[in-house]
Amino acid sequence: MRLLHHWPLEPFSRQIRLILDEKSIRYTLQSVNPWERPEAFLALNPSGMTPVLEDDSGGVARTVIEARAIAEYLEETTPSPCLLPGGPAERAEARRLVDWFDRKFDGEVNAYLLHEKLEKPVQGLGSPDPQAMREGREHLRWHLDHIAWLLETRDGLAGPRYTLADIAAAAHLSCLDYLGEVPWDDFEGVKHWYQRVKCRPAFRGLLEDKLPGINPSAHYADLDF
Amino acid sequence: MRLLHHWPLEPFSRQIRLILDEKSIRYTLQSVNPWERPEAFLALNPSGMTPVLEDDSGGVARTVIEARAIAEYLEETTPSPCLLPGGPAERAEARRLVDWFDRKFDGEVNAYLLHEKLEKPVQGLGSPDPQAMREGREHLRWHLDHIAWLLETRDGLAGPRYTLADIAAAAHLSCLDYLGEVPWDDFEGVKHWYQRVKCRPAFRGLLEDKLPGINPSAHYADLDF
Repeated sequence: MRLLHHWPLEPFSRQIRLILDEKSIRYTLQSVNPWERPEAFLALNPSGMTPVLEDDSGGVARTVIEARAIAEYLEETTPSPCLLPGGPAERAEARRLVDWFDRKFDGEVNAYLLHEKLEKPVQGLGSPDPQAMREGREHLRWHLDHIAWLLETRDGLAGPRYTLADIAAAAHLSCLDYLGEVPWDDFEGVKHWYQRVKCRPAFRGLLEDKLPGINPSAHYADLDF
Repeated sequence: MRLLHHWPLEPFSRQIRLILDEKSIRYTLQSVNPWERPEAFLALNPSGMTPVLEDDSGGVARTVIEARAIAEYLEETTPSPCLLPGGPAERAEARRLVDWFDRKFDGEVNAYLLHEKLEKPVQGLGSPDPQAMREGREHLRWHLDHIAWLLETRDGLAGPRYTLADIAAAAHLSCLDYLGEVPWDDFEGVKHWYQRVKCRPAFRGLLEDKLPGINPSAHYADLDF
């Protein structure tokens, strides 16, 4: 049995759901509100952050913590389908892009848009700050430009095959898309890439998410948006 | 030939220097001031951040970017000595701790103390803010408490062998130690662990660093501090 502690609209948890589903690994979801710092969850992970994977499938109980560690653990324990294909250089490029989204995109886009429009309402922290929203939207356009450039200059984000880089990018963008914050029509190349990713069976679970009080954008679950 | 683009007192670059030296890989250092956003460096890495490793040792020129990607690349291409020992669960635990230092410690300690006492003077951003310094020092004591607890409850940070977790922790703490910011005497267990790490031959290069205008603390290079 595998149990994933997650928060539905948190990009790091979403990456692990996508990986588990790509690898057809069966698991149960346990939703956590990390900002409430629940004691039982803090006992599992002292940082208090999702995702955490509890895995006793091998007859030994293992607690695997933090998205990057879980992703590498799943690559090692369930290598097929491989989400870090190619040789060391190709894998390094996929890992570089994952880090780009997990640190740079997270700090420059999520810290503005997800914080203002998602974290503030669910945590009762007041209404969104219009200036922060403007800055976040500007940063998002810069990142979409960069993704468009990557897709134009190479075959796929980190190579011709689907990798953890696609999963990281799609997981982050999917949260913003839930909020209707991605200007897809201004970035056709990125839109086509996201349409292909969104059509993968592993994406279905994410498209069914509904947060109480915050409805998804009209096209969020639409495969032909 | 391998060329590492780094900034001497940047914890992510320091991790890669430690890994290269642990693995006895020969390389040349190229110092970069990332905040000046040098064009040639931006052409290598669009994020503008160190470290970047240029590697043409295998007859093909490869540019490997970002500390985690470089660390995994070096583990794959030069597996001995292994710095992610054990099985998938042990490796996941080492990777979790690396992430703890690279994201949590970096955001809660470096963003205060290294920013105020190191980045501000070298980038001409004014004098340190006493309130931010106080907060950073408080966070550092909390993290040292946590490291002490880890060392008490298990054999080593991520297990009985020296791993990327020790390297990440030591690289981050070494920058603060250069500035004389680590209250070692209040954390005897952590001090003993750092003394053992500091005595490793791979650590020598770091202890020779001298930043123009900012002298290291009196005990920085002292193995018996």
